[in-house]
This record gives sequence, C-alpha cells and structure tokens, in this order.
Amino acid sequence: MNLTADTNSVEKDEDGTARSVDDFESLRGKSLSPSDNSLAAVEETKFDRGKWKRKSVVTLALTILTSSQSILIVWSKRAGKYEYSVTTANFSVESLKCAISLVVLGRIWKIEGVTEDNRLTTTLNEVILYPIPAALYLVKNLLQYYIFVYVDAPGYQILKNLNIISTGVLYRIILKKRLSEIQCAAFILLCAGCTTAQLNSNSDHVLQTPVQGWVMAIVMALLSGFAGVYTEAIIKKRPSRNINVQNFWLYIFGMAFNAVAILIQDFDAVMNKGFFHGYSLITILMILNHALSGIAVSMVMKYADNIVKVYSTSVAMLLTAVVSVFLSGFQLSLAFFLGITVVSVAIYLHSAGKLQR
Amino acid sequence: MNLTADTNSVEKDEDGTARSVDDFESLRGKSLSPSDNSLAAVEETKFDRGKWKRKSVVTLALTILTSSQSILIVWSKRAGKYEYSVTTANFSVESLKCAISLVVLGRIWKIEGVTEDNRLTTTLNEVILYPIPAALYLVKNLLQYYIFVYVDAPGYQILKNLNIISTGVLYRIILKKRLSEIQCAAFILLCAGCTTAQLNSNSDHVLQTPVQGWVMAIVMALLSGFAGVYTEAIIKKRPSRNINVQNFWLYIFGMAFNAVAILIQDFDAVMNKGFFHGYSLITILMILNHALSGIAVSMVMKYADNIVKVYSTSVAMLLTAVVSVFLSGFQLSLAFFLGITVVSVAIYLHSAGKLQR
Repeated sequence: MNLTADTNSVEKDEDGTARSVDDFESLRGKSLSPSDNSLAAVEETKFDRGKWKRKSVVTLALTILTSSQSILIVWSKRAGKYEYSVTTANFSVESLKCAISLVVLGRIWKIEGVTEDNRLTTTLNEVILYPIPAALYLVKNLLQYYIFVYVDAPGYQILKNLNIISTGVLYRIILKKRLSEIQCAAFILLCAGCTTAQLNSNSDHVLQTPVQGWVMAIVMALLSGFAGVYTEAIIKKRPSRNINVQNFWLYIFGMAFNAVAILIQDFDAVMNKGFFHGYSLITILMILNHALSGIAVSMVMKYADNIVKVYSTSVAMLLTAVVSVFLSGFQLSLAFFLGITVVSVAIYLHSAGKLQR
Repeated sequence: MNLTADTNSVEKDEDGTARSVDDFESLRGKSLSPSDNSLAAVEETKFDRGKWKRKSVVTLALTILTSSQSILIVWSKRAGKYEYSVTTANFSVESLKCAISLVVLGRIWKIEGVTEDNRLTTTLNEVILYPIPAALYLVKNLLQYYIFVYVDAPGYQILKNLNIISTGVLYRIILKKRLSEIQCAAFILLCAGCTTAQLNSNSDHVLQTPVQGWVMAIVMALLSGFAGVYTEAIIKKRPSRNINVQNFWLYIFGMAFNAVAILIQDFDAVMNKGFFHGYSLITILMILNHALSGIAVSMVMKYADNIVKVYSTSVAMLLTAVVSVFLSGFQLSLAFFLGITVVSVAIYLHSAGKLQR
C-alpha cells in the first residue's frame, strides 16, 4: 500500500537519525577533552547533515501532500457536491492518523524495544497539554461558519493570509525563538506575495469587510496561529520523545473533539444514513491525503518549525494554482506572476537571513 | 523666486561640503602618522555626516519634484489636451536647466573664484562623452512613438517598470559597483511592488503583448537604464569637478538634440504658430518642474547613485497615486496596499543589506 510505504520512508529516516540526536545530546552533556573535539566536530557535521536531510524530506512531503490536497478538492467539486458529512470525515482523518502512528510505533517497538522515549504510557503532566490544539481548532472551525455572514468565500481565502502574520508573531512571542530582521521582512513578503497571487477583479471587495468580519478573521488567524505554535511547543518540549507517541496523543484528543462535533452537528444524519454515508473514492482519497498531510505537519513541527510549515503550505498553494490553471486551461494572471516573484524572493531572504546570524 | 532659492539651498550644501571632499581625498593620499589618525577619524565622521545629509536632501528633492510632476500632468490633462508642441517644451526644459547651471556657476565664481574644477572651459577628452546620454534618450523617445503600435498606454506604464531591472543590471555591469545579494533581492521586490501597485482589472492585457512589443519595451528599458548609468559614470568620473559645469555640458547637448527633434517633428508648427504657441500657466509650471527634477536627478547621480534615483522615483510614483486618489475621491485598491507593502520592505532591505557588507 502506498500509504504505508510513504510513512515508512519518513520512519526509516527517523530510525536512522533519531538516535544520533540522543547520541549528540549525551555528548553535549559531558565536558569534552581536547582530543574528543575533532570527533565531536565530525559527529556534529554528520548530525547537521542528517538533520537537514530529515527536515527537507518532511518539508517536501508536506508541500506535495498539501498541493495534492487542493487538487483533490477541485476534483471532488467537479464530481459534484459533498454528500458525506464533514464531521465524520474529520473523525475518520483523526482515527486514520492515530492508527498509522500505532502501526509505526509497533514496528519501532519490534526493532528498538520499548524505551522511556517510545512507550505509549504517559504522565498526566505530559498529556495535559495535548487537548489544547484540538480544542483551539474546534473553536476556529465553529467560527468559520459565522464569518461567512460578513465575508464571501473568495474574500475569506484572502483574509486567511493573515494566518501567516499571526503565526510569525506568535512564533516569536511564544516560542521566544528569534527570527532575524531579514527573516521578519521575508515573512511579511510571504504574506503580501500569497495575497497578490490570489488577486482577481473582485478582490477589492474584501476591503469593504465590516469591522465584525475583520475582528473574526483576526481572531481566527490568532487561534490557528496559536494552535500551530502550541503544537510545536508540545512536540519540541521533549525532543527525545518519539514523534509517533506525541502524535498518538494529539490525535486521540482530535478524535474526541471531532466525536463531540459529530454529536452536535450530524447525529441524526449518522443515525439515519450510517457513519460512512455518501463516501466516494474521492472522499476516501481526501481522507487519506488529509491524514498523511497531518502527519507531515507534525513531522515538520518536530524536525523544523512553524515558519517552515507556513512556507511549505504557501508554496503548495502556488503550486496548486499553477496545476489547476494547466488543468483548466485558464491563463495565469500578471498578479499571480508578481505574487510568485515576491514569494520566491521571500524564500531566498528567509535562508539568506539565517546565514547572517 | 522659489526656483533660485531651491537651487541655492542645494548649492549652499555643496559649498560647505564639496571642499571637504578634496580635503579628505588629499588626506587619504598621504600616509598618516599615528597622531594624525584621530584627526582623520573626526574629519571622516564629519565628512560622512555631510555626505549623508547632502545625499538625503537631493533624494528628498527628487522625490518631491517627481511626485508633483505627475500631479501637474494630471492637472494639465484635466485642463484639456496638450496644445503646445512637446519638442519645444523639451527644448525649453533643457535651456532652463542650462541657464540655472550658469546662474549658479556665476555665484560660485564670485565666492570661490574660477578654479580648475569650476571653470567652464573643458578638454575634448572630457566633453566627448557628454552627448551620449542625450543621444540615447533621443533614440528612446523616438521608439516611444512606435511601441504604442503593440501596447496600449496603461500596458506601457506597466512595462516601464522593466527600467528598474535594467538600471539595476547595468549599474552592476557598467559601474562595477557591488550590490549585496540582499540589495539585489530588494531591487527585484521594488520592481514587483511597483507593478503590483499599478495593477487593475485590465492589467492582464499586457501579458498578451506581441513579441515585438516585448522586444521594444526591453530595448527601451535598456536604453533608459544605460543613459542613466552612463550619466552617473560621466559625473562621477571626476568627483572634484563642479556639478554645475558637468550639468552645463550635459544640458547643452540636450538642447542640441532637442533642436534636431524640433526641426524633424514640429518645424512647420513652430514656423506658422510661433515657438511658444499653446503655452499655458500649467505648461510653464511643468517646464519649471521638469527642469528642477532634471537638476535633482544630476545631483542624485553625483552625490548618491542610480539605485537611489530609482527608489526615489518609485516612491514618488506611489505618493502620486495616493495624492491623486485623495484628489479624485477613488478608493485605493488592495493591489495598491500590497504593492506599497512590498516596496516598503524593499526600501528597508536595501538599507539593511548595506549594513551587512
């Protein structure tokens, strides 16, 4: 199955390099004698290369999965309206992610044995933070129904770019990681470039959004940014902890919150027509894709950060636009070219800004 | 008169600091004894501050003059069609610039006496390069009539942003001055931002420009960029030479080339209706403004460079748009906000990129 193959390739990487993180960290703990220094340097280079490779693989996976996600949505729209319930689909995504994490964990236990870092049992102290991102996303999804009172769908797509800014701001404030000034400038450009790429003749309507619409858009951007940054904080809190255990707990709470959403919104439909009513091949592919994207997001949070995640999903958005233009035979707009130019420069500046620290 | 006051204020600055350039340069020539070093440092700080102040004044003057230029054009369009001949107006601009340079030179001779650096007489070796920028502009202006076969006026406005790229590229190639990578990125952003700010619902037409239109637009951008960079090379070739003498020679050839243009294009009209036919108050104000802007461009070339000139005129373009929106009561578009954001980041990056060298 493609699904397992894909997860394995990420895992193989994880098996190969995850332990070298521990090795390196234990080396760091000791005060090294001069003769150990060259060994440490070699180790560090190897470690950096492994880290960089893993970061690239998960980022690439996220970009490809997110791109194909939007293409599946376009495909499913062509095929007709959604006839399945969105809440059961979300629940299925969470369950699938949870199942994948458990399968992978099983393999790891067979190879490495059960250790302190990969065992599923946890303390209240560790697990207590895990429901928070799922709760934040639930509130955000609820708000999403109300914002359409004030903003139309294309306007909402444009306002969603506020997520980029909110993620950047919260990343700096909450994770207290410094972005260089050049990198901050690059992030503003990323937001401006993505918005420019989405411009069309109706875009100016968004400037007429009433204050309530703006407030809701900003609150949603903050919730979404906060959930992302919070997830990173949880995952990074214990670097040696196996990512699949961390994912398992995140997804368990995701399942729980989505179960509540089913009860509130679709209880009757599920009772009358069954849980999987209206599922088609595309629905199943979308669930698969969302599950894999979700796992890729976790991996990016573990091995890179929210900033990389935002760049990755922004590039995916642009890739999707190019692909859907090719599929539909439309012409790309000047605004799209300008947006792509600005986003490309932003990506360059993000890495150029890093070198100068 | 406002005109003389304006030129004098730049000149006063010039009188104050131009000689310190020489002082500094003669200091540099000698190998300094250790005790001289602190004196040199003080001198250098003073020199840097004077240089920075002068650079700021001329850049600000250029920005303000260029902004008011476009507003005068809007005003003159409101007042009706141009009834004067454009070639005589261009000739008047060159003559006025020439006259201003001579008046200012007269004052300098009174104060400083005639020196090697401020005397008007010149060698063939020095003067031989001065006609080249004027000739390039003439070719460019001739091409301007033909490009409208392939591109409409708003499309041409967008294609003119290619000037930014051509100036940047030629500046690096011909003047062999290094821009840092961040500054190059900033320059690409400046071009993208200016274009974004000009986007409207018809902008996509420009992508349908036939190959001939693109080629002409690129050739015109190269001619314009080359003329600008060449002017800077001429003016900077002899730093101690008085800028008014350099301007005088540039403008004399400007007058000559424009006289040729009158003969070719408007000879009959001038003969029948007179040289100043159709001149109104706005025409005179526009000529005044063009003359002062032209002098400001020379000053920016002398004390700053083509890159600063491009930033200055780009900011002026955006300022003009804001002012004309206020005057006409239109609403600013989302594209304009995005363009301004990108240009602002570009300006920031240009100076941030400089610090890291």
